[in-house]
Amino acid sequence: MTRQQLASLIRKTGSYLCVGLDSDRTKIPKHLLGLKDPVFEFNKRIVDATKDYCVAYKVNTAFYEAEGVKGWETMERTVEYLPKTHFRIADAKRGDIGNTSTQYARAFFEAMDFDAITVAPYMGEDSVRPFLEYKDKWTIVLGLTSNVGAKDFELQEAGGRLLYERVLETVAGWGSPDNLMFVVGATRADEFRNIRKLAPNHFYLVPGVGAQGGSLEEVSKQAINGDVGLLVNASRAVIYASGGEDFGEAAKRAAADYQSEMRGYL
Amino acid sequence: MTRQQLASLIRKTGSYLCVGLDSDRTKIPKHLLGLKDPVFEFNKRIVDATKDYCVAYKVNTAFYEAEGVKGWETMERTVEYLPKTHFRIADAKRGDIGNTSTQYARAFFEAMDFDAITVAPYMGEDSVRPFLEYKDKWTIVLGLTSNVGAKDFELQEAGGRLLYERVLETVAGWGSPDNLMFVVGATRADEFRNIRKLAPNHFYLVPGVGAQGGSLEEVSKQAINGDVGLLVNASRAVIYASGGEDFGEAAKRAAADYQSEMRGYL
Repeated sequence: MTRQQLASLIRKTGSYLCVGLDSDRTKIPKHLLGLKDPVFEFNKRIVDATKDYCVAYKVNTAFYEAEGVKGWETMERTVEYLPKTHFRIADAKRGDIGNTSTQYARAFFEAMDFDAITVAPYMGEDSVRPFLEYKDKWTIVLGLTSNVGAKDFELQEAGGRLLYERVLETVAGWGSPDNLMFVVGATRADEFRNIRKLAPNHFYLVPGVGAQGGSLEEVSKQAINGDVGLLVNASRAVIYASGGEDFGEAAKRAAADYQSEMRGYL
Repeated sequence: MTRQQLASLIRKTGSYLCVGLDSDRTKIPKHLLGLKDPVFEFNKRIVDATKDYCVAYKVNTAFYEAEGVKGWETMERTVEYLPKTHFRIADAKRGDIGNTSTQYARAFFEAMDFDAITVAPYMGEDSVRPFLEYKDKWTIVLGLTSNVGAKDFELQEAGGRLLYERVLETVAGWGSPDNLMFVVGATRADEFRNIRKLAPNHFYLVPGVGAQGGSLEEVSKQAINGDVGLLVNASRAVIYASGGEDFGEAAKRAAADYQSEMRGYL
């Protein structure tokens, strides 16, 4: 999916919502547990319920790996089920020396057909480059994350700037707004105006709205650019909107509420 | 495995070699490809051939994920096959917000029985903490890596020091030398004396010897401490020592050569 296609999809849908499939076997409704692949069945119903209100899905690989081979199978089935009309993100936070990152790129862009993968920047350019080399695929590099640990390094001084600013500026030179996005957490809304100056044309993947407490309004007002430039993720606030048999209906309402609010900011 | 047990194992074996199972289907000897699980069969023979000359095995998760569900199955079989006498590392470079890192810890410490996992520090304390909370398990945090990309951030100035120095100092406070190690690349031998001052008692996992060009002698002379404090990894130089049917024998010779050199430094 190109940047123009993603921007058009957002305008058409009236939403820049990404639904995060952090699907945890211990948290999905109990009545699904008798089925053969409960987490897949849960994801399927969540996707069916929310697809008209969002433009992207984000699969958090940790929740699948925790279940071993069966979890990896569930992840593969889930990716296959995600509608090709939507932007499909592997939230994997990978990154290693070049020959190893090449293998991770194969895993998420070839063995599975994701459009994008999240990547950690610590190890530098050759750890990110193999992902960028895939045509029509996206690399989403961690900039400023939504968790409290962001203060430990990301928000520390590094060469006259903060480390995350240095990361944004440096990494922006490795790709273009057509194949590179940044993770910027919604819990740092006060930083967004500054961040837009550093990377004016890139899309941001924004976690931290919902369960983590970030404000959709603040983020949207400060970060939307001419191509929208924003994918706002909500995981728990949508997929666990109800823990009962009405979880699909509840997820649909939660996603529709986001869409309705987002329409106002577009 | 405790630090004392690891140090004893090293003294007894006369080796601090870690063999890296970066096993790539396209690089293993052709005669194995007709078997049901060629990469597992390759790993099995490598382990059988090298176990008397090394104290640790490191499974590079990327090479298994690249093969999808089948690769994940191969990884699980490989971990089960690794001798319990040896230190078993998942080289996974994971790290995410707390509730997600908890899932990664489950994946590598519960679904699979690794002794240790490598973790990226960028997202800060709450992304590392869930791994440290496992009793008798180890967290190996990236300090200064062996790749050229280390110059992009790790070797940049950050608050009056280099970023990797700040990472070592800060992360050392989150755990102890009994549950925390650091990755320090062998290609940075000139930095080792300085690094030993920052983290005098921690074990280092040292990649970069062999195919990447680091010097075992330099690293050993500068970094060995009272508990040895060093695991030196070799992957390609051991597992691909021969590409023919004698690959096991060649791996054995390569591992024995490392042991022989290491004995001299102990």
